[in-house]
Order: sequence, then structure tokens, then C-alpha cells
Amino acid sequence: MHLVEYLFRRIHEVNIRSVFGVPGDFNLTALDYVEKCGLQWVGNVNELNAGYAADGYARIKGMSVIVTTLGVGELSALNAIAGASAELVPIIHIVGFPSTAIQEKKLPVHHTLADGDFELFMKMSERISAAAVLLKDPLEATRMIDETITDCYRSSKPVYIGLPMDLVQAESDPSPLEKPLLLRPLPTNSTAAEETAVNKIRESLIKAESPVIIVDSLAGRYEGLHVTRSFVEKSNIPCFSFPMAKGIINESLPNFRGIYAGDVSNPGVQKAIQSSDLILLIGSRPSDLNTGAFKCDVPDVDTIVFHRDTVELGEETYSNILMENVLGKISDAISVSASNTASNSPFSSLLSSPASSAGANAPKISLDESGSLFKSEKADTSADSIPLSQEWLWPRISSWLEEDDIVAMDAGTSAFGGIWSQHPRGAQSLFQLLWCSIGFALGATVGAAIAAREQFKESETKQKRRTILFTGDGSLQMTAQEISTLVRQELGVVIFVICNDGYTIERFIHGWEKSYNDIQPWDYKLLPQVFSPKPDSVRTYSVRTRGELEAILTDDQFGPADNFSEEQPEPLRLVEVHMDKHDAPQTIPDMITALHGKIAT
Amino acid sequence: MHLVEYLFRRIHEVNIRSVFGVPGDFNLTALDYVEKCGLQWVGNVNELNAGYAADGYARIKGMSVIVTTLGVGELSALNAIAGASAELVPIIHIVGFPSTAIQEKKLPVHHTLADGDFELFMKMSERISAAAVLLKDPLEATRMIDETITDCYRSSKPVYIGLPMDLVQAESDPSPLEKPLLLRPLPTNSTAAEETAVNKIRESLIKAESPVIIVDSLAGRYEGLHVTRSFVEKSNIPCFSFPMAKGIINESLPNFRGIYAGDVSNPGVQKAIQSSDLILLIGSRPSDLNTGAFKCDVPDVDTIVFHRDTVELGEETYSNILMENVLGKISDAISVSASNTASNSPFSSLLSSPASSAGANAPKISLDESGSLFKSEKADTSADSIPLSQEWLWPRISSWLEEDDIVAMDAGTSAFGGIWSQHPRGAQSLFQLLWCSIGFALGATVGAAIAAREQFKESETKQKRRTILFTGDGSLQMTAQEISTLVRQELGVVIFVICNDGYTIERFIHGWEKSYNDIQPWDYKLLPQVFSPKPDSVRTYSVRTRGELEAILTDDQFGPADNFSEEQPEPLRLVEVHMDKHDAPQTIPDMITALHGKIAT
Repeated sequence: MHLVEYLFRRIHEVNIRSVFGVPGDFNLTALDYVEKCGLQWVGNVNELNAGYAADGYARIKGMSVIVTTLGVGELSALNAIAGASAELVPIIHIVGFPSTAIQEKKLPVHHTLADGDFELFMKMSERISAAAVLLKDPLEATRMIDETITDCYRSSKPVYIGLPMDLVQAESDPSPLEKPLLLRPLPTNSTAAEETAVNKIRESLIKAESPVIIVDSLAGRYEGLHVTRSFVEKSNIPCFSFPMAKGIINESLPNFRGIYAGDVSNPGVQKAIQSSDLILLIGSRPSDLNTGAFKCDVPDVDTIVFHRDTVELGEETYSNILMENVLGKISDAISVSASNTASNSPFSSLLSSPASSAGANAPKISLDESGSLFKSEKADTSADSIPLSQEWLWPRISSWLEEDDIVAMDAGTSAFGGIWSQHPRGAQSLFQLLWCSIGFALGATVGAAIAAREQFKESETKQKRRTILFTGDGSLQMTAQEISTLVRQELGVVIFVICNDGYTIERFIHGWEKSYNDIQPWDYKLLPQVFSPKPDSVRTYSVRTRGELEAILTDDQFGPADNFSEEQPEPLRLVEVHMDKHDAPQTIPDMITALHGKIAT
Repeated sequence: MHLVEYLFRRIHEVNIRSVFGVPGDFNLTALDYVEKCGLQWVGNVNELNAGYAADGYARIKGMSVIVTTLGVGELSALNAIAGASAELVPIIHIVGFPSTAIQEKKLPVHHTLADGDFELFMKMSERISAAAVLLKDPLEATRMIDETITDCYRSSKPVYIGLPMDLVQAESDPSPLEKPLLLRPLPTNSTAAEETAVNKIRESLIKAESPVIIVDSLAGRYEGLHVTRSFVEKSNIPCFSFPMAKGIINESLPNFRGIYAGDVSNPGVQKAIQSSDLILLIGSRPSDLNTGAFKCDVPDVDTIVFHRDTVELGEETYSNILMENVLGKISDAISVSASNTASNSPFSSLLSSPASSAGANAPKISLDESGSLFKSEKADTSADSIPLSQEWLWPRISSWLEEDDIVAMDAGTSAFGGIWSQHPRGAQSLFQLLWCSIGFALGATVGAAIAAREQFKESETKQKRRTILFTGDGSLQMTAQEISTLVRQELGVVIFVICNDGYTIERFIHGWEKSYNDIQPWDYKLLPQVFSPKPDSVRTYSVRTRGELEAILTDDQFGPADNFSEEQPEPLRLVEVHMDKHDAPQTIPDMITALHGKIAT
């Protein structure tokens, strides 16, 4: 078996079916093997966009792969790879190298600095990767491939595999393929520590009058996702999400209480957390924009913090115990108690005395004035001619979204608005609140839409998922040509472009009227036509008022996934949403007021 | 004086008037100082394009500057910065950082990996930069700025300056500004060695029957450019250029003999070099594509190699002598002798005996069959309906070009064809034959056109220079949105897009009919309209036959710079040039035949 076939078969094994990237002279021969290994070559327009697409795909399907060529290709993808490293998205980055003989002779070939150093760019990638290897010895290569892909999964970070042209067809021993990769780390769980911790957590829960759960982004990484969801659902404890955790917890659950971002939160959310007496914090990963600029002061009450393999209980730390085991055991105890008693309290059998069962079962959180957990839409049907505003838009989007939608939101008003939309069950959000690279969301949309199409083909229920992009005009311009890939791959996504004359979020930071925050106005409606779409496969819109947007959102031919079929596939829909350049969701000035003094001085 | 003002004043001092880049939250306050320091903010669409634009600008004006923001911004530019490092183009890369206080506290802010490591990305850039500094102490900062800009100039490579937000307005001592930077290195010239070398070179020249000069790319870097040009012109010795040296030597000089790329050269060129008895090789920098895949075997005759500060004479090496001094002295001797004698031989007074003056004065090179030094156009006026071919196109372009044109050519058929067009006096070429990053040339066109406009404003003669881009469809797609900057900045360049259905150069390497070498067909003519040009500021064309292209090239309203004025400025012209996807200049298969075995095995 040729080495590259071994590589692609392992990639197929980890549930990857599409390969993102751009062809280049050092990777062409490898690309010949993509299809024969059951994979699809996507062919992005450039490498940065390919990196973003790989990120979006991995967020939906678990892992992804991008193929670039030495130097010129790989470096163009680095911002996307670093973003995946920051946001913990596992991407396998395969880079085509010239032959080992060329490397050994240190020849000054093109795509290098002509200094004979072929590992220079790999060393740059190494700093943002969980592992970086350059395959050299065909006998070692299969083991290195296996280890690197395993590292990718376990770290949930990008890895780098350098593939010299002469190794592409090197004869390799296929026998390791008989055993699937052992992706999940071997348990290092300490059962004694685990038992103590579980008991203490049970005791704390029983004592607590008004416990709350706050879920953070790491709950969606590694092995914690399903057990976190199950725990939140079964426990019925009031639950909040940090912004970066959006999409982990079903926001339509009765015990879901909203997004918590410190001082930037809705007042009711702040109050509820301030009045709790026990906080379960799952998957904590602090960062500035995730925490209202580090202003997530929680009340001085008992707090249990669940990390991947550690639990902190007040002053005590229990190490080497897996979050999934601990949460799993507590969930199990809750399920057993719930099914053994007629009580509504899932905690009743955890309690030492039934008399105190008023505890966790009766959440004492306060809602904000309107009673809503999210920024809510103010009904005003006579207001058709009112210009669109951010304040009105995002709550309105909440009710337009459908179950299982994939919602990509670019850093800017889209993400800072969209986070505060309520998402339906099964919805997944794609956004970067740590890395915050504008232009990411369009690329990620390509990858996510391809992943969703694969899921549709593989699933028995044939349940369609829409992929929806909210982006700004400045953001879209960064990666605009990737709409070509949407057209080429016939991905009928919905794109809302917030047209507000430039970098609005930056105006709030500095330079309110400065020309450096302006951009060239584009005719975005014209853009899909540049990419030669098939007849009737693209629809474009431009709206400025509530009435105009309402007309689209309520149009059966625009939105509902059910109204499309294989015979009438979803068209690519692009909506220009015009708004004032100084209008932003209130969370932006709130966040910036809190943040900016910090980063500037 | 605020520190950033100090920085921008130094940048102004080195002849820079435009700042490329993209605003980001960590650099906004710095941007407030751009205009007040006499600079223009360009505002590119994304950072990769900004990096390419900075490269193009530096190639015309000497140095350039790009401003990005930590992480997301700087990494997107890395491919362009690495390209400048490979191709020896001096770019000052200024990166906005959060405050030193944030850095010291290692806070997990956005645009980082949330690991408290703020120097991570700088260390990545360090590997492709002549110097990389992060300003920390305001008292040290002005000295560090001066040293780094000096490094940039002297190395002719990119440098990196990290500028924390709190240092932007730090009070700085402006007094060093009173003395201009000492950009040129202090002479380390050994006068004794220089004298010996100059004498030996004179002796060799006198003895030689048929000397030739071959100019390579480094002659266009550092301090060698003018003295090389002057030497070639005064000496009247038959002169050849390596492909990467295109633009250094005036190709209309009577002693200019064509492009030398080893086996890929025109037969006449090969023969002339093979039959010479002394080779003067100036500014040598071997690389694969520059040398016909390292097949630049020169005959086993005396060879003198001029490096920046070393001269190799056969087995002897003279170090610490500056090329500019040595070539300068030989040129001076030639001038004196030429003005002192009636002889046509510039070498006559160098000769020990006038009797032997037949030597260098009578170049014995052979031309190829057609007598042309370049690929030549075959006149065939009845052939209007013949589809366009690469073989016909590039010679035809030779005669369309005007003096002082700036000609950007993207890696692919554009560069491999365009190199073999004959360029008129003063023409400058922008292309990457070492780094070969496709998409580069469009970005570089933006920077070059801005540089040319500045030169026009500064010059007394008010001589206009056209900026012309030859690119492929696959290349253009990589950076297509930068046409928006051409529109925004009202840069009336000429763009020829070779539309040949994908990556033709790659088809010759591997995958002749493979779909990974295909791209989505675009309607390129529609593209400028997306960017909202002013009325009548854009013209688009589409040609498939010789006659159709001829009609444009001979149209007075299309091409000649003289036909435009301030009242009627040059419009942006975009020409789709349709050709067969399997058609390429013959140099491509020749090069690949020579090269590909090397890089693959």
C-alpha cells in the first residue's frame, strides 16, 4: 500500500469524508489518492479560506483535514490554523514537501527561502500545533501518522504532517489499519478520588438551596459534551452558558436560563447567579470577551469547577479524575432517583432527609423585567417602515431559526448580536470569541455546509439541516471569494450580510468617524453572479426596514428547510441587511467599556 | 513626541508615503498618526493582500510598511512576508499588541491562544525576518526602531516591530530624528584587496576574446543596482539576464542579448554563452526556476563572480570588497578610456597593447535562427480569427509595452511567458520566481500603482507610468477582492486575466485532466462592478482570437499612457484573455521536464 493511501485511510477512519485545500506542485500526486480512499476533494479558492472551512467542518463532524503545499500554501492557512489552536478545533494539516533527496541536498528550490532549510515553516506551525512531523523514513511513517492523528483528537488542536513527494507512493505496511486508532486517552481515572469527589458533590447538591450550573466552552471539547448535556437535562438545575459555550446546551430546555457574560449579561441572569448558593462550573476556559472583560465575579459561595481531568471543590482539588466519569455518575444517580420516586425532585433520593427536598428542585432565580432570558423582540406590527436596528434584529432571528440549524456568526455585530438570539434545539453555532478573526465565518460556512450534507446522506432520517451565515460587510470582504466554493459545491446556504459601512465594532473601540474604519461599499447582490451559478440556484435580496426583512423571513419560499427537496434544492440566498454604521447590539459598547481600558493601558 | 509619531517619521524619512494594512483593535490608536506624519492609509481588503501590496510598493520605491494586529492580522500576512524574505524585499511589519500591562499579567485576551504567551506569533515571524522586536520600554524604543528600520534596509528583508497600545502615545525623545538614519552599511572595503581584484579583472577583460556578462537577481538588491546598470551600459559587453534579474538591465540596450535560463533559454542564447571565454556573473543567487532547474552549466572558462562584498576570480576569493566599488572602478576606467580615445573600444586604454583591441569590443555571440533574442512574434495579419495562444501572445505584448511600464506577472503562464517578452527601457517587472505564490501579482499591482502615482506627483517631468498586470484565472481568484482597492484608490491599471480553466502550470506538472486542477469559472468582467466603481472608471473586455486582442492593443483609447490626463484619468481595464487550458509557453514544459524529476524523487 502506498503511504498516502495509508494516511487517507486513517483520515477516513476518523469520520472525515472531505478534504479541504488548494493544489500545489508538491502535493499533486497525493491528491490522486483522495477519491480512491472514499474522500471528496473540495478545492477551495485559497488556503486561508480552506483553513476556515476545515475548522467549520471539524466543529460539525469532529475532525477535519486540509492539504496545502510547502511555504506559500501552508503559511496562507496559518491564521486559520492558529484560530483552530486557540478555539480547540482538531484539524490535520498535510503539507506537500519536495522529495527527501532535494531536502538532503539543501537545494534552493522555489517555495523556500533558498537557504536549504526545509523545516523552517514547519517550525512556525509547530508553535500553534499539538504535534508537527515531517515524514522521512517510510518504515517510521505509518506509526508517526497514527500518533499524530491521535494527538490531534486527544488535544483537540491542529497537527501538522509534512509529506515529501517521494514518500507519497512509498510502499507501506497496511497491517496497522486492521486495528482502529485508539483515539480516546487511556483512562487515568483515580477511582478512590472519584468516589470521594462524587460523594462531596452529592452532599453539596443536597445542601444547596439554589444551585446553578454555568457551562463554559471546554464542556464542548474532549469527551465532556454528551455527559454535560445529559447532566444539565436530567438535573433540572438552572443552567447558564458562557458566550463561548453557546450551542452546547439546548437553549429551549426548561431549566436553561440564558447567557452569562458577567456585567454584559441580562440583568436577570446576573441577579440569578448572584443569588445562588452553589455554582457548578463545567469546562471553564476564561478569556476576555467570554467573561465581559474578566468581570464574571461570582458570589462568594461554594463553587465546584469541573475540568477535563480535575474537579475543584472549594479549596480541595481532585486530580486524575475524568469529568465525564464524575458527571456521568451524578447523572446516573439522578436518573435512578427520578425513576424510583414519584417526587418531582430528581434529587430526592440523594437527600439524607426527604424534609429538605425543597432545595435544588425549586430554582430561585429571577428573570429580567420582561421575563425573557434573551434579548427579546418588541412586537410592533405597525412598524414596517422602521429602519432595521441591531436591537430589533437578533431577537427576531431567534424565532426564525429552526431546529438543528447551523448558525455561523462572524466576530463583530453578528457574533455579539447572535449570541443573544435564542437558538432552538439541536442548533449549532460557529463563531470565534477567543480568536476573533473576521472573515472566518464565511469559510467555516463552506465547511459546515459540506459536513451537514454528509450527515444528511449518512443519516437514516434524512433530516435536513440549514446552514446560515451572519456576517458583516467588512468581514465578508476578507474571504468573499469563498462564495465561489458555495456555488461550485452547490451549497444552498443562507447568507445575511450586515451592511453598515465598515468595521462597526472597531468604531466603538476607537475612531468613531475615522476613515480607516470605512470600507469600499460593494454591491454584494452582484457577487454570486460573478461565480457563474447554475440557473435559479441563487437568490439575492436587499432590505432596509423591518417590513422588508419580515417579508423575507415569513416567505415560505425563502426559509423553511422542509420546503426544499432533492428536486428543488435549497438555493444560495444572500440578503443585504442595511443598518446604520453606528448601530450595534448593546453588548458591544458594554463589553468595550469593560474591556478597552484593560487592553489599552 | 508620541512614540508612534517617532516611528512614522522615520518611515517617512525612508521615502515611504503609503501605509498598507487592515485596522484592528490593537492598532487603531496608532492609525490616528498616519496622516499627520505625511503618510496615506491605504486600507487593504485583507492582510495577505496588504502584504503583497507592500511588496509591490517596496519593489518600486525601495521600502514599504504594513500595519496589522496581533495574531489574526499578522498571521494572515505571513505568506506575503515570507515571500518578501525569499525575494529580498524590505518591508517593515508593524503589529499592534495589547498593553504591556496585559502582557505582563498574561491575561487570556482575544487574538491569542489564551495561554499568556504574547510573543508566540512574533517568534513565528522572527524566522522569516531580518529582525523582530517587541517594544516594551519607551526609553529603549526609539533606538530599537532606528536599528530595526536600518536592519530592514541593509538586509533587504522584512522586519517586525511589535507596538503595544500603551506605547503608542508614550512620550519619546525626538532628538535622534535630527540625524537621518545611516542606512547604508559602513564601508568594510579592503582597499588593497580591491585594487588587486580590479587589476585582475582588467587583465582578464583585456585578454578575453568574447567575454559575456550574466546578471542575476542580487544585482537588483542592496547597493548594486545602479553600478551594475552603468557597468553593463558602458562596457558594451554582451549581457544576459537570469529570469529573476529581469528588469535590472535595459533590454533595449544594443549589448543586451536576452534571458539566460540554462537549457530553457533560446538556442542562440545558450550558444553565445557556451562560446564565450570569460563570464562576469553579477549578483548570483541560484534557484531552481531561475536556472532551468539548475541546468545553467556554463562553459569551463574563466568566470568572475561578483557578490555583494566578495569577488570570486576562478579559484581566488577576495573578501570584504564591495561589489559597487569594484564595478564602479571598472566602469570609471572604461569611461575614461572611452572619452580619451577615438576608438570604439571602451577597453582600449585598459589594454597593454593597442594591437590586441579586437578583444571584447567584437562580441562573437550567435543569435538564434530568427535573429531574435526573445521569443518572437510571427507576423500573420490574415490570422484574425485564430484563437489566442501563449506562443503568440507574449511576443505580441513586447511591442505593446511602453517605456517605464510596471509589469506584474503572476507565477504560472503569465510569468513564464512574460519573462520572454522583451521589455522596453525603464520597464520594471514584478514577479516571484523563487517564492512563486499565486495571487501575489494582483496585490503587488495595488502597491506598485500607488508607488507609481507617488512618483508621478513627486517628479518634475510628470511622466506617467502604467501599471499592467498579467495573471491567471486561478491566481486572480486567490486575492480577487483586492480589485476593490484598485477601485477605491482609483488606480487605473490594466489587468489581463489569462482565462484557461484552472491551474495550467500544474497540469504540466501532474494531473493533466484531473479535477483538482480545475477551478470554478468566473465572470471576471462582472467583478469590478461588485466594487461600486465610479461611472466610466472601469472598462472590461473579453477576447478569444488574435483579431479581438489586436483590436484592443491597437486602440488608442485602451493603452497609451499619453492619451490619459488628470481630466480623463486612466480607467481600470480588465481583459479576459481566453486560451486553451493545455496551452502554455514552451518554457513551462521545458522547465518542468528538467525540474520535476528533481523535486519528486
